[in-house]
Amino acid sequence: MSTPNGTGDDGTDFADSDEPTTVYDLAAGCTLDDIDSGEKYVGTVNGVVEYGVFVDLSESVSGLVHSSNLIGSYDVGDEVIVELAEVRPDGDVSFTEVQLADYVREQVGPGQEVTGETLPDAVGDEVHLDGKVVQIKQTGGPTIFQVRTASAVVPCAAFEEAGVRAYPDIELDDVVRISGTAETREGYTQIEVDSIATLDGEARETVTERFEKAGPATPADVEPLIDWPAFEKLRGDLQTVAARLRETVLEGRPIRMRHHADGDGLCASVPLQYALEQFIEATWEDPEAPRHLLKRLPSKAPFYELEDVTRDLNFALENRKRHGQKLPLFLMLDNGSTEEDTPAYRNLTHYDVPILVVDHHHPDPEAVEGLVEKHVNPYLYDEDYRITTGMMSVEIARMIAPDVTDDLRHVPAVAGLADRSDADAMDEYLALASEEGYDKHRLVDIGEALDYATYWLKYNDGRELVNDLLNVNCDDTERHERLVDLFTERAERDVETQLDAALEHVTREELDNGAHLYRIDVESHARRFTYPAPGKTTGKIHDKKVEETGDPVITIGYGPDFAVLRSDGVRLDIPEMVAELQAEVPGGGVSGGGHLVVGSIKFVSGMREAVVDALVEKMADAEIDEDLGSSAVISE
Amino acid sequence: MSTPNGTGDDGTDFADSDEPTTVYDLAAGCTLDDIDSGEKYVGTVNGVVEYGVFVDLSESVSGLVHSSNLIGSYDVGDEVIVELAEVRPDGDVSFTEVQLADYVREQVGPGQEVTGETLPDAVGDEVHLDGKVVQIKQTGGPTIFQVRTASAVVPCAAFEEAGVRAYPDIELDDVVRISGTAETREGYTQIEVDSIATLDGEARETVTERFEKAGPATPADVEPLIDWPAFEKLRGDLQTVAARLRETVLEGRPIRMRHHADGDGLCASVPLQYALEQFIEATWEDPEAPRHLLKRLPSKAPFYELEDVTRDLNFALENRKRHGQKLPLFLMLDNGSTEEDTPAYRNLTHYDVPILVVDHHHPDPEAVEGLVEKHVNPYLYDEDYRITTGMMSVEIARMIAPDVTDDLRHVPAVAGLADRSDADAMDEYLALASEEGYDKHRLVDIGEALDYATYWLKYNDGRELVNDLLNVNCDDTERHERLVDLFTERAERDVETQLDAALEHVTREELDNGAHLYRIDVESHARRFTYPAPGKTTGKIHDKKVEETGDPVITIGYGPDFAVLRSDGVRLDIPEMVAELQAEVPGGGVSGGGHLVVGSIKFVSGMREAVVDALVEKMADAEIDEDLGSSAVISE
Amino acid sequence: MSTPNGTGDDGTDFADSDEPTTVYDLAAGCTLDDIDSGEKYVGTVNGVVEYGVFVDLSESVSGLVHSSNLIGSYDVGDEVIVELAEVRPDGDVSFTEVQLADYVREQVGPGQEVTGETLPDAVGDEVHLDGKVVQIKQTGGPTIFQVRTASAVVPCAAFEEAGVRAYPDIELDDVVRISGTAETREGYTQIEVDSIATLDGEARETVTERFEKAGPATPADVEPLIDWPAFEKLRGDLQTVAARLRETVLEGRPIRMRHHADGDGLCASVPLQYALEQFIEATWEDPEAPRHLLKRLPSKAPFYELEDVTRDLNFALENRKRHGQKLPLFLMLDNGSTEEDTPAYRNLTHYDVPILVVDHHHPDPEAVEGLVEKHVNPYLYDEDYRITTGMMSVEIARMIAPDVTDDLRHVPAVAGLADRSDADAMDEYLALASEEGYDKHRLVDIGEALDYATYWLKYNDGRELVNDLLNVNCDDTERHERLVDLFTERAERDVETQLDAALEHVTREELDNGAHLYRIDVESHARRFTYPAPGKTTGKIHDKKVEETGDPVITIGYGPDFAVLRSDGVRLDIPEMVAELQAEVPGGGVSGGGHLVVGSIKFVSGMREAVVDALVEKMADAEIDEDLGSSAVISE
Repeated sequence: MSTPNGTGDDGTDFADSDEPTTVYDLAAGCTLDDIDSGEKYVGTVNGVVEYGVFVDLSESVSGLVHSSNLIGSYDVGDEVIVELAEVRPDGDVSFTEVQLADYVREQVGPGQEVTGETLPDAVGDEVHLDGKVVQIKQTGGPTIFQVRTASAVVPCAAFEEAGVRAYPDIELDDVVRISGTAETREGYTQIEVDSIATLDGEARETVTERFEKAGPATPADVEPLIDWPAFEKLRGDLQTVAARLRETVLEGRPIRMRHHADGDGLCASVPLQYALEQFIEATWEDPEAPRHLLKRLPSKAPFYELEDVTRDLNFALENRKRHGQKLPLFLMLDNGSTEEDTPAYRNLTHYDVPILVVDHHHPDPEAVEGLVEKHVNPYLYDEDYRITTGMMSVEIARMIAPDVTDDLRHVPAVAGLADRSDADAMDEYLALASEEGYDKHRLVDIGEALDYATYWLKYNDGRELVNDLLNVNCDDTERHERLVDLFTERAERDVETQLDAALEHVTREELDNGAHLYRIDVESHARRFTYPAPGKTTGKIHDKKVEETGDPVITIGYGPDFAVLRSDGVRLDIPEMVAELQAEVPGGGVSGGGHLVVGSIKFVSGMREAVVDALVEKMADAEIDEDLGSSAVISE
Repeated sequence: MSTPNGTGDDGTDFADSDEPTTVYDLAAGCTLDDIDSGEKYVGTVNGVVEYGVFVDLSESVSGLVHSSNLIGSYDVGDEVIVELAEVRPDGDVSFTEVQLADYVREQVGPGQEVTGETLPDAVGDEVHLDGKVVQIKQTGGPTIFQVRTASAVVPCAAFEEAGVRAYPDIELDDVVRISGTAETREGYTQIEVDSIATLDGEARETVTERFEKAGPATPADVEPLIDWPAFEKLRGDLQTVAARLRETVLEGRPIRMRHHADGDGLCASVPLQYALEQFIEATWEDPEAPRHLLKRLPSKAPFYELEDVTRDLNFALENRKRHGQKLPLFLMLDNGSTEEDTPAYRNLTHYDVPILVVDHHHPDPEAVEGLVEKHVNPYLYDEDYRITTGMMSVEIARMIAPDVTDDLRHVPAVAGLADRSDADAMDEYLALASEEGYDKHRLVDIGEALDYATYWLKYNDGRELVNDLLNVNCDDTERHERLVDLFTERAERDVETQLDAALEHVTREELDNGAHLYRIDVESHARRFTYPAPGKTTGKIHDKKVEETGDPVITIGYGPDFAVLRSDGVRLDIPEMVAELQAEVPGGGVSGGGHLVVGSIKFVSGMREAVVDALVEKMADAEIDEDLGSSAVISE
Repeated sequence: MSTPNGTGDDGTDFADSDEPTTVYDLAAGCTLDDIDSGEKYVGTVNGVVEYGVFVDLSESVSGLVHSSNLIGSYDVGDEVIVELAEVRPDGDVSFTEVQLADYVREQVGPGQEVTGETLPDAVGDEVHLDGKVVQIKQTGGPTIFQVRTASAVVPCAAFEEAGVRAYPDIELDDVVRISGTAETREGYTQIEVDSIATLDGEARETVTERFEKAGPATPADVEPLIDWPAFEKLRGDLQTVAARLRETVLEGRPIRMRHHADGDGLCASVPLQYALEQFIEATWEDPEAPRHLLKRLPSKAPFYELEDVTRDLNFALENRKRHGQKLPLFLMLDNGSTEEDTPAYRNLTHYDVPILVVDHHHPDPEAVEGLVEKHVNPYLYDEDYRITTGMMSVEIARMIAPDVTDDLRHVPAVAGLADRSDADAMDEYLALASEEGYDKHRLVDIGEALDYATYWLKYNDGRELVNDLLNVNCDDTERHERLVDLFTERAERDVETQLDAALEHVTREELDNGAHLYRIDVESHARRFTYPAPGKTTGKIHDKKVEETGDPVITIGYGPDFAVLRSDGVRLDIPEMVAELQAEVPGGGVSGGGHLVVGSIKFVSGMREAVVDALVEKMADAEIDEDLGSSAVISE
């Protein structure tokens, strides 16, 4: 908004004229951009010095009327009519006093001040809004500035010329005052920009303080779903993550969620996706924002593969170049806390790409330290995998968008069962799910159905299917039920077919420590490229054998260059075993990792016999511990 | 269209006024939406009862003038001027009679009635149209309702506010009356909507009856291309499919075509794609409709893989969510009729996703029964694979868009040769193709060229290339010819190179039944990941051996976990063999299927020797039948 | 632009009328399209013959006034007022003389003539422009004709009706005169079309001559980066390629760049991509043109695979159909010159798809001859691989956009080191790079970093990452440096891990010719599906062994159906060996190729032993030549 043209004259003011001269009375919010030279303004004296008086025209516009330009004599608080004399390069402003026989006063304002919340009520009005520029997108028409206020992000459309960047001096993260007209467009409200002024110094401070005071990034203070002291140790960390994610949304930075493509990984990522979409919808006026600001990507490997990170990074760089997007924040869910992830992280180090990890796999904290901004993991608090990622994520989701709670009560139980958590708290989670109508076997089924779907979806996120299966953000519970029935039945049948072939070839031996060792060559004696894959096939054989024998049991499923390990009642400590094998089998090319009772090992195919033999020797020395089990929950 | 405002007055009608009062005369097509209270309308008495008279204002608007509201006395057929008194919740309407000293009559109409066919002639006019809403798409500007009339689908653009859903009460499949202005837009005609009214009861009935009467879904009654009694048994089924596909187009449901990626599969899918695109163009005003309503997808496997169906389903669900599309109908061509397809079908069961199958592979009718809406297969009529899918599809294509006939006469012959059909009718199909200038070797070449192209295209549909090779929907016959030359030559050269290596390693033995058995390890003795793939390599070896020996011949091409089978002069009955092997080789993980003389078997690699040995034993017992042959046609 | 309507009358001119008649004076540029019958024009006699006079109305409009239609008598150069009498089918024009008592003259012109360069200065003006139509794209609104002038391509928007093709008679490659208004749109200038007239005969000639005279396709005459006589033999070829690429851009034909996905391939393709984008931006007004006209695609194989070409071709055909694009020119970089590429080329033969090859691999010139338009290769001039493709491409890039020179000085050295060129000229290239601040080890690092990135990017072009790594078109040198550090470190660590396993399994023997032969089974004794891949792993082992022994060394890394060969100090001549093995090992399925000292061989897996044994026998007979080396540069 600028002072209306054509109403004033050129300074010869005492001349005869039919029309009285207009004197403008600036609203407090006006900036220097609202001042035109040659126009008259009413100001208030706020200081009297030897060489003149200081006059305020608005909060941010004030300047000196030098004695030589002063007609009358004034005290602090007096009104005085002035014209702009000069704006110096250093920003100092000076005025000249003007005296008028006859004049009319006209209010000039940057419009009412609005925030993201009050904007929709001001449609059609002149408004102004203070905030931070978090995205700048050039369209074929106007330039769209997404401006963050205390708790919402407002699109402001500035038109210079079709396709031409308006206000080229305004940059990302500038704190600005936008003046313009509130208008409705494609179902949301935006400001049609008249002017953008950068706010500096105190004015800027005021805005950013407001952000902090309003605290929109502060996670909601939700009651724990269940009473579980062990879990509570992690609450502070979860709040940190929730706050960071909320802040990330408000700052216009996209979030790229990378999650383990299994049951727990989906129980972790789907609720968070749901909550974040709710939060984005609540805070961004632009209805396309959820689609642009959030992406959920399944990772087939249990760690962040170099192929994935290289392409993620390149994708992010291109989005920045082509769509003016900030580089994303990466959120690793149910993976990301081990040595194996660090090569990927290092690739991101030199870009502005923060990484958050929420995982319950046995971590290598020193390895990821310094590479990620936040690493949340129960092992860091002497807890273990039994606090699953899904359990943690549901709490984070609730801190971001408390309203999602009702849709998520059953999810921690699904996550726990999918990852065979035998935590004491499982009973409470099961009770919670039961209140929602899910019995234990149903919850197991949901996990199996998710696992089955994700196998066939490969790199596709399968958004709609997965939401339906987990019954999160799904509008038809009956469909959810039929779909779980269907997928479970299919999964069971495929497992049966696989075991039909495989079980015939499982060999059994007894180790010195009394454990039963079962071995199966899953490459030669199971169908390939179908569900269940080697790891799951091994697990299913293991479960069957535990059921049959009830003793300490270890199962190895091996292919040409890998082995999958499962144990019940034996403490394997797979990460340690890998370290020992690396030293003991030269040229074995051994790597791998896992939990205490579940894991996998890779080696070069020519050394399979040597590696597996050495591995079995170690297993024969392993400690028997009846409490440890990878199949405890399911097999009961 | 509603009655013009501002011309009437507020009911004090006998008062002095310069202007005579306006009385509206509603056109027959007007609905209750066209009536404003306070306005006067002329009606016709259509019934006189004790307590008043019934008056019709239009076809669908009529009501009672109760004696207490009646001034004069009328007979059936008399005109009477009324005002709206009340519309009851049950839809009953009552009027009040009005008498006027002076008035002018004004026609009010919903515009001329148009259909999809007559709409383009009414550009610029006020029109109305009755039909069924088959798609609702929200754009950044108006909401687009695609409305089906008897035989065309018309886009109707309703603008509420940019990006805001207009008429939120109108849902998919509602029968409606649209009033508005016919206008030209981007090369087609649409209605700019003034009002949408739902039609219920009788009015709805009338519209849907009109759909049935017009019978646009009724397949064209085309003459058979050739005289072939065996084929005629299937005609009823083919008509059912044609009708369903036409209806599907008119109902705005997308079609997802999944076809076997080989010669016959392309001869089946390409003509149908061509015919359906013609039909969509003829019936939908929206020029983008062919692209949105039809997708042709090659399947690499000879059955519907779980990976494919899972992604297809998720894709369909997302399209529904994002573009307001109905879930698609799946059309399986040259695959889809066996047990192996049922897992995929089961995944679709609980969604509104009809499945049609047109196939000539040996079916498991009980397995697919109840999962698919229609299963067309010559085996169901005691015929066999010699009626190829391409032959059937060409007839369906002609029933959908008869004009395509001239472009398709050569296609059944290509299909028959590609799938080695030795049906007697092949002579007639060859004669038909010959009339179009294709001799037999040329037709074989086209099949080979298609096979070659599809191998390298992998999951890509290769639309333009494939159309050029088959000379369907191809605008340059010379290019077609050069391209077939080129691809055939390349394919032959690659086959030669492959056989150069492989033939050296083929072993030969004589079975007890006198058949020659040839074996080749196609994984160890043929180039991998290149054309021809193992199945085709085995076939080419087989053809060569049949030519050399002329005796009953069986060829097995095996890899680590599969075997491809081909026979001439021996009845193998591969589906039965698979069933027997499953029982006889425990832990073999055997599966597979095929025709009587062509098939493939899978097993776990560790059991290859046991499975192949058992298989050869069976072959030694198989019946010799000189008439059976997989290479009869080609090898002559 | 046509003559204004409504100002003239219908030919009864001597009648009394208040307004004097208007006589139009056509500007030189006007065409027949600017003439209306019934209007009067002033012309100039340019010839007097027995039967009348010839009159010019403009440069391209002239015709006969037959004696019977002539009132006065005129000499050459006289003015005469005429009306149009007839335009014959053969284009001949005749006029009728008109004499007027009183008239006013009005200038009618096609506006000032503009070229691509002067257009932006004419915004708001009536203009005309002569040029060649190089692209026609139908949008939902106007039809966009991209019109090439001598040295720029200008978008001309013609609106018939939304979405309807304007001027349907105008075709690609027509030479036309466009009249209209220059206007600014989305940051560039276009012409809003009033009329398009085809120019034929002389007028057409004039335009195309202007193209040739302006010579925008003529490559810039750049000074060689270094003084290297061997390289200079190729300069003429490089100029031919540069000219063809410039011409291709101006003709609106897209360029599809297929390059070897390794260090030298990137050093060849990235600079050319950069230069071509600069050139497109400089010559095309449409800011989207660089994205539409150029695509860089990495090829994983060292030759043009059938899968790639089939999909490329189909993609090109679809773009032609859907976006009105011409079929592309293919530019093969650092691959494309061998027999193995010819199947792919043959697939393109019958389409209008020119192919250019710039390569330094040992070529089969006869094989590619006739299939490609231009084949540039140092071997054709008795030079060899030491002139790398990157070195050649940098020169081509400079000929296309000389301004890129400063950003590319270091690239030839990177290319040379990446491909182990021990050319004498390497010293000069290293010196050049050193001036830019890159020392030799750094340049090696860049090559390794590129190699590492490209391995993980797979089929993705990784545009931003690759630009950053090579520091070409990268805006932040510091980021480049950190990224190279990071990627090099990661690559080294991965190589180390790989060698840790592999070196244990390397066997050594001494051949009869005194060379050391090292063998490693890279499938069994190295990690699969990770960096470094088998070829690189073999190379790294080889380098280590050369360093250890310093003697003539050959290394074979083999898998089930392939072998990678590297040698130092032995002349292997791999292409010849392959030819011999094909003859000597029947059923071996041998193929392959390479340089003299680096190469790879494929065979069927069942014949590995026979092939490798025969290969080793040949190696024992190979000539020792201390000068030949694949690791000379790196190992110093």
